[in-house]
Formats: sequence, structure tokens, C-alpha cells
Amino acid sequence: MSESFRTWQLRFEALRSNKFFEGAVIAIIVISALVIGAKTYEETSRFEQWLTYLVLAVTIFFLVEILIRMAAEPSLRSFFRRGWNVFDFLIVTASLIPMDDSEMVLLARLLRIFRVLRLVSMIPELQLLLIALVKSIPRMGYVALLMFIIFYICAALGSFLFEDVDDFLWGNISTAMLTLFRIATFEDWTDVMYATQEVYAWSWIFYLTFIFLTAFIFLNMMIGIVLDVMQKEGAKQALENGEGEAAQLNNVQDDIRQLQAQLDRMEALLSAQEQPIRQKGVDKTVKD
Amino acid sequence: MSESFRTWQLRFEALRSNKFFEGAVIAIIVISALVIGAKTYEETSRFEQWLTYLVLAVTIFFLVEILIRMAAEPSLRSFFRRGWNVFDFLIVTASLIPMDDSEMVLLARLLRIFRVLRLVSMIPELQLLLIALVKSIPRMGYVALLMFIIFYICAALGSFLFEDVDDFLWGNISTAMLTLFRIATFEDWTDVMYATQEVYAWSWIFYLTFIFLTAFIFLNMMIGIVLDVMQKEGAKQALENGEGEAAQLNNVQDDIRQLQAQLDRMEALLSAQEQPIRQKGVDKTVKD
Amino acid sequence: MSESFRTWQLRFEALRSNKFFEGAVIAIIVISALVIGAKTYEETSRFEQWLTYLVLAVTIFFLVEILIRMAAEPSLRSFFRRGWNVFDFLIVTASLIPMDDSEMVLLARLLRIFRVLRLVSMIPELQLLLIALVKSIPRMGYVALLMFIIFYICAALGSFLFEDVDDFLWGNISTAMLTLFRIATFEDWTDVMYATQEVYAWSWIFYLTFIFLTAFIFLNMMIGIVLDVMQKEGAKQALENGEGEAAQLNNVQDDIRQLQAQLDRMEALLSAQEQPIRQKGVDKTVKD
Amino acid sequence: MSESFRTWQLRFEALRSNKFFEGAVIAIIVISALVIGAKTYEETSRFEQWLTYLVLAVTIFFLVEILIRMAAEPSLRSFFRRGWNVFDFLIVTASLIPMDDSEMVLLARLLRIFRVLRLVSMIPELQLLLIALVKSIPRMGYVALLMFIIFYICAALGSFLFEDVDDFLWGNISTAMLTLFRIATFEDWTDVMYATQEVYAWSWIFYLTFIFLTAFIFLNMMIGIVLDVMQKEGAKQALENGEGEAAQLNNVQDDIRQLQAQLDRMEALLSAQEQPIRQKGVDKTVKD
Repeated sequence: MSESFRTWQLRFEALRSNKFFEGAVIAIIVISALVIGAKTYEETSRFEQWLTYLVLAVTIFFLVEILIRMAAEPSLRSFFRRGWNVFDFLIVTASLIPMDDSEMVLLARLLRIFRVLRLVSMIPELQLLLIALVKSIPRMGYVALLMFIIFYICAALGSFLFEDVDDFLWGNISTAMLTLFRIATFEDWTDVMYATQEVYAWSWIFYLTFIFLTAFIFLNMMIGIVLDVMQKEGAKQALENGEGEAAQLNNVQDDIRQLQAQLDRMEALLSAQEQPIRQKGVDKTVKD
Repeated sequence: MSESFRTWQLRFEALRSNKFFEGAVIAIIVISALVIGAKTYEETSRFEQWLTYLVLAVTIFFLVEILIRMAAEPSLRSFFRRGWNVFDFLIVTASLIPMDDSEMVLLARLLRIFRVLRLVSMIPELQLLLIALVKSIPRMGYVALLMFIIFYICAALGSFLFEDVDDFLWGNISTAMLTLFRIATFEDWTDVMYATQEVYAWSWIFYLTFIFLTAFIFLNMMIGIVLDVMQKEGAKQALENGEGEAAQLNNVQDDIRQLQAQLDRMEALLSAQEQPIRQKGVDKTVKD
Repeated sequence: MSESFRTWQLRFEALRSNKFFEGAVIAIIVISALVIGAKTYEETSRFEQWLTYLVLAVTIFFLVEILIRMAAEPSLRSFFRRGWNVFDFLIVTASLIPMDDSEMVLLARLLRIFRVLRLVSMIPELQLLLIALVKSIPRMGYVALLMFIIFYICAALGSFLFEDVDDFLWGNISTAMLTLFRIATFEDWTDVMYATQEVYAWSWIFYLTFIFLTAFIFLNMMIGIVLDVMQKEGAKQALENGEGEAAQLNNVQDDIRQLQAQLDRMEALLSAQEQPIRQKGVDKTVKD
Repeated sequence: MSESFRTWQLRFEALRSNKFFEGAVIAIIVISALVIGAKTYEETSRFEQWLTYLVLAVTIFFLVEILIRMAAEPSLRSFFRRGWNVFDFLIVTASLIPMDDSEMVLLARLLRIFRVLRLVSMIPELQLLLIALVKSIPRMGYVALLMFIIFYICAALGSFLFEDVDDFLWGNISTAMLTLFRIATFEDWTDVMYATQEVYAWSWIFYLTFIFLTAFIFLNMMIGIVLDVMQKEGAKQALENGEGEAAQLNNVQDDIRQLQAQLDRMEALLSAQEQPIRQKGVDKTVKD
């Protein structure tokens, strides 16, 4: 790596980590996203033209930044080994595709929109949120599997019992599962119930059992897992910062270990003292 | 038990605890459940025929597995003493019932569907979730009883006040309780309120009081109990793993007990030292 | 108090605290409540007649019980000083009012229904739940006051802005507050919004701001307060039972205090030892 | 500051901090707000005229109070430095604007309503709630940003896929985001889904993925952050009051530090004792 390249790189990194520059880039991305959302591609006003130039500047900035990061690595392979680098590379590449050809205008629009994902790799707090999200997936998976089993069995029962009442809602198991999901979100569930109650007056038992089961499991499991993950992360962080009860307990343990060391020294002293006294006692007796 | 049987059994257990084999079995169960859900019994495509064979293989595998487990126990009674064994036995037996007779096709379909419950006894994490669910039932029961009392009294008041307005919703206490449950889930509750408000303008007081009472108790009690159960389970587990603050506190207590033992030794030493010195003092005085 | 009365009283208390008897009484109350709910007063079947006799027996039992409790107290005043006694007295008295006169049949029905409240004073767990509920009311009151202020100002703005669009929903501030409460429960809030959006396209800003504000405050404050109250109660209980981290910390403190006492003894010993040695040293020098 | 002014000020502060007077003022503000809400300005009854006089008295009271607080400060600048003072000043000033001129009656009505905000600066508990709210905004901001990104991308996909099905709901990205927010609140989301399912049968995948993603993140992040903020505030407060585990841990640390000091003294004693014994031993050897 040449010296001048390193100077360049450091200057660029200083620019990137500048709070004001970062804020400006975030603002440009969010505002351009909002403008695309509000008008859906009828860029006419002068403000929007200015914004287009700014977005182009941001695109070039990110292109230069990722090229510098690639050049700084010993090889391309080591660059692509980190997940966030691959993520950034894909977004930058996608934002370079020209969007003027009228035939692929819809796909181009979608690509343009994915630029907003840059925010995730730009802001460390969002990266942390995403990582926390990903970390809680495996435990959530088991809850989801249990929910699937309950939904599946209830859907089988539902389509078995209510198929004749409403074929659109209870026609087959997959439709019944969708209907049950609707009931679990409380979306017009009484309409579904009143319809089946006309034929089977006792059908409210089915609905209430299902609602208690799913609402209970959802609340129970989801919130419990989320809080558990959150608390462990928080406790880990507090411990690293030397704050919180865990850190205080560590201090207490250190203090007690110091006490032990001091006591060891004192015990050694006492034993040593014991020896001469005994010795002396013996000497004396001998002498006398 | 013969030697060859034990070899067989060990080989079978090794197969069962194999991660890849377990994953394949879970996949077959879930996919076959999804296919049943999607098509509801019009097995025509080649993919589904393959799946039928695979499901048959899984059925036979589970049959063999349960037979081996039964043979491994000293007696049938000791086998059926464990709840999960009974659970497995019922599901395997149910999945053996032939499903080709056209007259009982609906019941057979239901039986086929209960096979998905095998997942629960197969995956230990799901067993733990179910056990946690069962453990929180007794405390939930009291909350449910309190809710029943509140619902019952409000339903009595509601049917007393609004019977003339809408007989379908407030006709008798049981109907009124169902209507109140609907209001507690916020399902089109304004329609119910607007209808009674036309006759009794002040009736919004009844609805808002009920919503605050139930939403508050629900949130209050349910989440509180769930979190309490979760935290105690988590603390117990962390303690067993030697992690967390409780384990650290245990370590502190152990350290302090060691300090105490050391101090006891030192005190004994000191007292012992005291003796000869005193002794000597006395001796000296005598001698002098 | 005569001796025979006390024997009677003890026997009665033994009967009342009998688990099976208690279960039977709870079952009778709940089932009779359910039957009243299901049929609303067309007592014809034999089962219901039996139930009427059982309910009468329960009424008499509670009457006798409260008379015994009143007689056991030194004066009526000391009996009515405890809140739960007043509560029981009112319910028992209300359940004694005859219900056969056809003119007051509706009021009588309501009185009959309040009998279910006996369950609360019978089951200690329900009493605890109610006490926890009452304890969290003062802190909840401030959150409710803040919510009222936010609702009031938003309702003023809403009725100011949207009065011309829909007089039924936004006619005056009180109606607007009810509409806002409906929006806070997500009940058909899009219908309200789409109606005003036809006149004022930007009105979604008002609705989204309000939803974020209320949903956020509700979640934030309510759950936070509930969990805080629950945790403190739980910690207090765990401390009383000698369990949990607080109790462990107490043990650690006791251990450390013992260490201190032991060290005090040892220090006194050391100082005492010091004295004779010095003394002896001086004696020796003098002697020599 | 003259002596008589200070006497006046102290008397006024005594009146303001009087619990009964405070309660009366709060009652007047809330009742007048409720009356405005209920009738919307048709002041006719005698009760309302009385209330008008009371509200006038409260207005004058607050005017005098703020003037006293301003006079008590060394300069106007130091008065306006505190945020709550500016807040009070604005509300008092706004409540002084006369409201009889018929042309600005609507704006005047709004100003009248903002008087209820006085409650916030009057009651310290409400101030604390507002401060807690403001404190959790920065962390909530990141969650909101992540939600915005997810909504934005899903809205882009949604308007790309379903634009032809329903132009009102999916016409452009901003409309699609509003539709997605509606789906996230479960408001008639099945109507939206059933409409698109008629054209694209697989569209339920889009809706379910979105619901899981948003409901999960909302629950996950929001509750987690709220509880974290609450617990830290609670722990801080408990520590200040000398209660809770953190305070107990502090006590343990203090005790251990005392033990250390005592051990230091004892070690010094032992070392000092050691010296003369050794010395003596040497003396003796020499002497002998």
C-alpha cells in the first residue's frame, strides 16, 4: 500500500465518521426515499432536481468508500468474508444500475428503493438492533413450530366441523389456517363465529378455546423470550461497562479475594511466630 | 435381555439421536402436514406419492422405535407410567389405523392430522415449552376466575340494561358474556356501543369502565405472571449452569465461608499462643 | 363466651377450611351462576331444582358462618372495622332478600347475581389479586390523568378541524374524545381517517401522531408500572420466605457481621498478647 | 427584595403547596375542561356560571403566582432559563387573551383548552412521567427508523405488486405505507388481503411475513426498551433511598472495606509483635 493511498484512506474515514457529514447523508437518503414515496416518479420541481443531484453525490460517495475499503483489504476474499461488506457491496452495485430505460422501469424503481437499506449498514445502532433480531430467531423458531402445530390441529378440526357452513373460510386446511390467523389477530372474528353459530350453537367453545390458547402462548412465549434476550444483553453490556449489580458483585468477589490473601499472609506470620515461641519454650526448658 | 437385542437397541438410539436423521423426520412430518393442508386429499402428482411412501416409512420407524422402548422396560406398567410414553403410544397407534375405507374418511383425516403431534414428543425444546405452559396454568386459573366474576357481573348488568335494545347481543347473561368478550378484544365494539347509545346516551360509561377493568387486569395479571414464571425458570437454569448473579452470590458465600474457616484456624492458633506466653509468664514469676 | 359456643365455632371453622367442602361450595356458586347465565330463569329441569336447594344450603351456611364470626368478636363495631367483613355482610344480606315477588324480578335477578362475589372473599388468592389491583391504582391514576390531558387536547384539535366532515364523530369535544378512544383501540380507525382524508388529505398526520403517542404511553407506562409493582411484591415475598437474591444478600451480610465479631475477638486477643510481651520485655530489661 | 414582598411570597407558596388548595385547583381545571367538552360553549345553567367565576379565579391565581415567581428571580433571563417556567408563562399568557370577540371564536376555544396543560406543570408526578417519556425518545428513534425502512421496502414491493388490484390502497408508495400501517394495527387487514388474493392467490405470504416482522419488532424492541428505561430509573431511585439489592450490595462492600481496615490494623500489630520477639530472641542469644 502506497503512502499517499493511506493518507487518502484516513482522510476519507475521517470524513465518513464526521457526525455532521453522517447526518447529512442520512437526511439525503431518508428525504429522497420520502420524495419517491410521495410522488412516485414525476420529478418536476426544482427541489426534486436538487435532490437528484444530492442522491447522485451520495451514490458516488458510497462507491468511492466501498472501493477504498476493498483496496485496504489484502485480498478480495477477505473483504467478502464479512457479512456487512457483502451487504454494502450488493446495495452499492444495485444503486449503480441505470434507471432510464423505460421498459424495466418498475424493476428499476424497486432497485432504487433498496438504497434505503444503506442506512442499516451506516448506523451502528441499527446493526445492533438487526443482530439482536437475528439472535432471538432460533428460540422464536420453536415457539413458531408449537404455534404451527396448534394452528394445524385447530384448522383440521375447523375445516372438519365448519366446511359446510362457509367454504370460503373453512374449505380446506390451508384456508382454515388463514382464517384462524385472522381470528388470532381479532380481525372481525365475531363475524366468523356468528356465521358458524347459526348452524352449531356451541361453536363459541371452539373459538374461545383457540383464542385463549394462542393469545396466551403468544403473550407468554414471545414477551418472555424477548425480555430474556434483552436482559441478558443489557446485563452483559453493564458488566463490560463496570456498572450494574453483576459488576458490583465482581468487585465484592475481588475484595474478598484480597481479604483472603491478607489472611494468608497473617496466618503465615502467626505460624512463624508460633515456631520461635515454641522453640524458645523448649530452649528455656532445656537451659533451665 | 439378550445381547443382540441390546446392540440393536443401541444402534436404533444412535440413529434416532442423529441430527440429520432427526431433521429429515421433522421435515417429512411438517411437509406432509403442509401438503395435506394445501390439497386436502387429492393425491395425484408424483411428488405426493413419494411423500406418501416417506410418511409410511416414518410411521413404521416410529412403530419400531416404540416397540423397542417398550421391550427395553422391565414391564408394560413401568412403560406406561411416564406421561410422554402414553402420549407417543396413542399417536403411533392412531397413525396405524387404515384410512382407505370410504365411509369413515373424515374421521380418518382427523387421525392422520394428529400425527403432527409427534413433533412435540420428538423435540425436547417443544416439550419444555409445553411444560412451562402447564406450570403457569394454576396461577392463571385464579386470574381467569377473577375475570369470570367481572364478566359475569358486567354481563348481568348489561343484559339487565340493554336487553330491549338488542336481543341478539344482550338477550341473556351467556349471550351478554360473549358480547363482552368481543368488546374485550376490541372487535367492532363501537357498533355495539353506538346501538345502545341511541337509547341510553350515557351507556359509554358502561363500556369504558368495562374496557379499562378487563384490559387493565388482563395486561396486569397475565404479563406479570408470565414474566414471574419465566424469570424464576431462567434464574433456576442460570444457577444450575453456574452463571448469573445467583451463582455469583453463591460463590461469594463460599468464599466467605472459607474466610471463616481460616479465621477459626487463626483464632485457635492465637489462643494456643496465648496459653504458653501466659504459662511462661507464670513460670517466670515462680522461678524468679 | 361459653365453652360450648367455642367448640361449635372451632368445628365450623374446621368445616370451612376443609379443602373438599370449600371446593364443593365454590363449585355450587360457579355452576349456579353458569346456569342462571345459560337459561335466565326458566327453572324446570330436575337438575336445576337440585341446584336451587344446594344454593339455599350455601346461603344458609354463609349466614350461619357470618353470625358465628360476629358473635366471636367482642363488639359489632370491631367486626365492621375490617373491610372484608363489611363486604361479606353486604353480600350475605343481599342474598337473603326473597326473590319471588314478580314486580321487582329484575332487581332481584341482579341481587342474585352479586352472590358470585362471595368467591372473592372465600378464596385468599382472589383477595390478593384484588389487593394488588387496588395498590396499583394511585400510580395508574397519574398515567390516566396524563392520558386525559392528551385525549382532551387532541379531541379539541379534532373537533376544531373535522367538525364539518362528520358531526356524529367530531361534533363536540366529548364525542371527539370517544372517537379518539375508539382510534386508540384500533377499532375501524381507518374508516374515520379515510372520511376526513377526502376533505383534508394531510389528516393522516393527526391520526398517526395520536396513535404513536397513546399506544406508546399506554405500553410504556402501564406495563412498566404493572411490572414494577409485581416485582416489588415478588421480591418482598421471596425475602419473607428466605429465598431469592435479596435473602442471599442478607445471609452474606450476616456472615460478614459474624466475621467482624470474630475479628474483634481476635484483635482483642492480639492486643492483650501485645501487652504482656511488652511488659515482659520491660520486666526483663529491668531485671537484667 | 423588600421584607414585605418576601412575607407575601412565603404566604403564597404556603397556599400553593397546601394539599386542599391544590386539589381544589386541579378539580376546577378538570371540571371546567369536562364541561367545555360536554356542552361546547352554551353556558346557560347557574352551575356553569359559577364554574366560569372559579376558572377566572384560577386564571388570576396563576397570573399572580407567575408574577411572584418572576419577581423572586434576580433577572427575567434567569427566569426564562428553566423550561418549565417558559411552559407556565406561555399557558398563563394564552389564558389571558379575551375570548368574547365572535370572529376568532374557534381559535379562542382552542386557547381555552390548552389551559388543561397547567396540570402538567402543577403536578410533579406528571412532570416525571413526561421526563421519562422524553428520555426514551432517542432509543425509540432508532427502532422507528428501522420500522420506517421495513415499511418503506414493503410498501415499495406492495405498490409494485398490487397497484393494479386496488389503486386507492396501493396506488403509490406513501399510500401503500399507510395501508401497511393499517395492516400492522390489524384494522380490517383481511379485507385488504382477500382483495389481492383474488388476483394473486399467493399474496397471503406477503401479508403474513409483514405482520410477523412488524408485530415481532414492535413487541420486541418497544417493550424491551421501555422496561430497560423503567428498571434503570427504578434501580437508581431505590439506590438513592438506600433500598433494594444495589443498596444492599453497597452495604456489603462497606462492611468488607471495614473488615479490610481491621485486618490492616491486626497485621500491623502482628508485625510489630513479631519484631520484639525476634529482637528478644537475638538479645537472648547474645546475652546467653
